[in-house]
Amino acid sequence: MSDNTNLAEMLKVAVAEARKGLAEGGIPIGAAMFATDGQLLSSGHNRRVQDGDPSAHGETDAFRRAGRQRSYREITLVTTLAPCWYCSGLIRQFGFRTVIVGESRTFSGGLDWLRESGVHIVDLDSSECVEMMTEYIAQNPEVWNEDIGHD
Amino acid sequence: MSDNTNLAEMLKVAVAEARKGLAEGGIPIGAAMFATDGQLLSSGHNRRVQDGDPSAHGETDAFRRAGRQRSYREITLVTTLAPCWYCSGLIRQFGFRTVIVGESRTFSGGLDWLRESGVHIVDLDSSECVEMMTEYIAQNPEVWNEDIGHD
Repeated sequence: MSDNTNLAEMLKVAVAEARKGLAEGGIPIGAAMFATDGQLLSSGHNRRVQDGDPSAHGETDAFRRAGRQRSYREITLVTTLAPCWYCSGLIRQFGFRTVIVGESRTFSGGLDWLRESGVHIVDLDSSECVEMMTEYIAQNPEVWNEDIGHD
Repeated sequence: MSDNTNLAEMLKVAVAEARKGLAEGGIPIGAAMFATDGQLLSSGHNRRVQDGDPSAHGETDAFRRAGRQRSYREITLVTTLAPCWYCSGLIRQFGFRTVIVGESRTFSGGLDWLRESGVHIVDLDSSECVEMMTEYIAQNPEVWNEDIGHD
């Protein structure tokens, strides 16, 4: 699962979730979890607007939908946007060792903190992801600020 | 909301949630959110076992049940147990400034990190909370380790 083709394919699943969220009127951030053999375990997206659920970030929604897992050491988390502190805390607490990030230009979150704690971060710097978030933030600054706790 | 009587009353709400979770067969960790005037905004408890939902820690369940909030600066989060990295990340990302903790003896989580980032932590060192977690962990070490990502 380490070559660029596979990484791009994994990101596509997260991007599809983000676009699904956008079509629902929500914030376009998606995520997915994959086993080492490439099997898709779960995917999810931010649901603040459509479900009125502030706890459902892309990463936490995918995490929830994967159900109980005994270990996350061999599970790869893919997310369209760098994880915020909340989602970075999830990654660290549950021992994910590899996180694939679509982009960290519009928001860098806890990436450095995760790297320092030994999590392997692959930042794909996807122009598609950058454009999707840049456009959303420009059009919905209040919802975006609410989603990252900036008042 | 700063005197000991009120703090104890606030903790009682979180403890009642923890005991509710225990009665459901779950991990006994509860939390609640209060406005500055003392109004209860929400309460929740860990739902890993009963709902098969690993994302529902006490703190995140209370957070979810409060619905969308424009700001958390004036909201006090009360939890029976020191918040793990996941819940500490939530606290930091959303800008809670005050967290009341039932105890941090059985698990210290991200308390120091939160203190360093400026969050006011009040640790009530409740013997009731210590006993509740000590007993649960002794009887259910595997579920507890799963809940904090220790494999």
